[in-house]
Amino acid sequence: MTGSTPAPFTAAEYGARMERAARSAADAGLAGLLVAPGPDMVWLTGYTPTAVTERLTVLVLAPGREPVLVVPTLEAPDAESAVGAAALTLRDWTDGKDPYAVTAALLDDGGRFGISDNTWSLHLLGLQRTLPGTSYAALTDALPMLRAVKDAAEVDLLAAAGAAADAAFEEIRKVPFAGRRESEVGHDLAGLLRRFGHSQVDFTIVGSGPNGANPHHEVGDRVIREGDMVVLDFGGLKDGYGSDTTRTVHVGEPTEEERRVHDVVRAAQEAGFRAVRPGAACQDVDRAARAVITDAGYGEYFIHRTGHGIGVTTHEPPYMIEGEEQPLVPGMCFSVEPGIYLPGRFGVRIEDIVTVTEDGGRRLNDTTREMVIVD
Amino acid sequence: MTGSTPAPFTAAEYGARMERAARSAADAGLAGLLVAPGPDMVWLTGYTPTAVTERLTVLVLAPGREPVLVVPTLEAPDAESAVGAAALTLRDWTDGKDPYAVTAALLDDGGRFGISDNTWSLHLLGLQRTLPGTSYAALTDALPMLRAVKDAAEVDLLAAAGAAADAAFEEIRKVPFAGRRESEVGHDLAGLLRRFGHSQVDFTIVGSGPNGANPHHEVGDRVIREGDMVVLDFGGLKDGYGSDTTRTVHVGEPTEEERRVHDVVRAAQEAGFRAVRPGAACQDVDRAARAVITDAGYGEYFIHRTGHGIGVTTHEPPYMIEGEEQPLVPGMCFSVEPGIYLPGRFGVRIEDIVTVTEDGGRRLNDTTREMVIVD
Repeated sequence: MTGSTPAPFTAAEYGARMERAARSAADAGLAGLLVAPGPDMVWLTGYTPTAVTERLTVLVLAPGREPVLVVPTLEAPDAESAVGAAALTLRDWTDGKDPYAVTAALLDDGGRFGISDNTWSLHLLGLQRTLPGTSYAALTDALPMLRAVKDAAEVDLLAAAGAAADAAFEEIRKVPFAGRRESEVGHDLAGLLRRFGHSQVDFTIVGSGPNGANPHHEVGDRVIREGDMVVLDFGGLKDGYGSDTTRTVHVGEPTEEERRVHDVVRAAQEAGFRAVRPGAACQDVDRAARAVITDAGYGEYFIHRTGHGIGVTTHEPPYMIEGEEQPLVPGMCFSVEPGIYLPGRFGVRIEDIVTVTEDGGRRLNDTTREMVIVD
Repeated sequence: MTGSTPAPFTAAEYGARMERAARSAADAGLAGLLVAPGPDMVWLTGYTPTAVTERLTVLVLAPGREPVLVVPTLEAPDAESAVGAAALTLRDWTDGKDPYAVTAALLDDGGRFGISDNTWSLHLLGLQRTLPGTSYAALTDALPMLRAVKDAAEVDLLAAAGAAADAAFEEIRKVPFAGRRESEVGHDLAGLLRRFGHSQVDFTIVGSGPNGANPHHEVGDRVIREGDMVVLDFGGLKDGYGSDTTRTVHVGEPTEEERRVHDVVRAAQEAGFRAVRPGAACQDVDRAARAVITDAGYGEYFIHRTGHGIGVTTHEPPYMIEGEEQPLVPGMCFSVEPGIYLPGRFGVRIEDIVTVTEDGGRRLNDTTREMVIVD
């Protein structure tokens, strides 16, 4: 599947990001950064190759030097047309040449480099072989917060993606649930995300009844029934930025226990949201949400972290998890999504994307967090 | 986007593939193989995770030992439902645990391992850090022919994908070209591939006029005109196996030069096909096709290799390229796709998938290779 991510930024903005990234690398004791096609490259240059193949494409950033994009000759015209290309130099290589030698000429042997997480091992091994004196650290380990703090334009794009996901929820709550398969409702959800402007749908989780108790369940063939809780967790990319929201609905009247569990999760989500403010640690958000669930006696049924970052992907640092002491900074955007999963019975999760502001947090999802009754 | 590749094979067949792969590893002097989600894992186990994330999923194969799939706990139910799961052991790890330690316990420190090309560097670095005595080779370097020789069932699936692509060509030649954008014809082609059973469209190249002279051009906004040559190169996956075919059509009557160039490419494609037989080297196919083009005086305008393998991906070893001495073996399947690219003017490429038989080659594409005139 081909397609390029929209590039709503200018060459100067991409240039500034590349310069900032190179400076951060130097601050972290790195000689530079190697960035393969994927979210890091999109964020730094706006460039997405039509396909990721065994042919090496890599962006080389080093403090005080001009950024260089190493690219197969056949793909050079495509790379040149990326918005960020005006802020870098292209270095192309033809079939039969050794792309690792071309790249090695740009690196200091003996240096330690950050390399984007998703760079193929084929390429890392090629670089290690060509420059045995170099060492490497995964970008997420070396510079986990590289893309974490969004500027105002990025927050606006995330807010627009969130509003589109909210619009999808307002429509999906009107469709019939009872008697239809999860996969049919998932199909509806994907269509709605596209209708409201998403170019890419990453997930449409429809977890009905016992399936809702598996937080990783996507959609299945199960026919939804009267009396089911249904977890709806959906998101994707709109104009290059992500959405991700969860609401748990109920088919017909809920039992008292179902109401109670939903109330606990709602209170936990609220507590997590209220813990968001500059200077708080990521783990504080997790602790605040988890405390509510634990106090209500459901601690053992909240089996995942409370949240993850979002940006040009729907899933990235920072992580709201015990042990993550990274302080929150205005512009960070992430999910707050506690849940309770009662095995074999049902699950409840409520999720909003939240951005850190100067004095707290702002939700980028705004549909009701009360339990919605569907047909 | 989620979705699982159809698994038309049995657990016993996957088991046999894993055993054969481990044996090949031993023959190549490797202590074992590490296989991440992607085409190698699909081919070995039938398993495709719903998403490839920073959470480690890896198949560990070692000669004489049972295959083990290391998988995040949240994804274990999904992995268990893969057909090949019955032929391996699952070892799951929960968030907060170190997945590299879990994997390291399955590896001999000091051993050299093959690792699938597309394994994230994040994971290779994690393994190198955990077991500093180990070393690694990319699977394509260590065992390039691992998936290259297809069994009869695989050839049948590739033939069915080829027939579907051919059916798409028979329809696309009837649509209007002149006055429409390349992107519109590309959209038609994608729809036709899906209509004839493709679950995934990998590329729909529509290179009209000068765009056809860029072999990597996909589709653009150029409006196709009377008198244009148009390169149509399209393919994707049907039932988990690939198609990839190219025909070059002409809008209205071609000039004498256009006819001549098309004839040369057709003769080159025929010569490449006729060079296919067991025991010939991959480079012989390239040489045979290239000689025809060089003899006609267009050698400098044939700027890529003659072909690439195809299977569970549309682009894999073996490569028909000068220097590749790998002998052809019955069951290998690859493209034969010479071309001539006249910069700023037009391009011609003709491509069939060919499978090696006991006594020669068999084409898996069967539409006319004569120049088709379109409207």
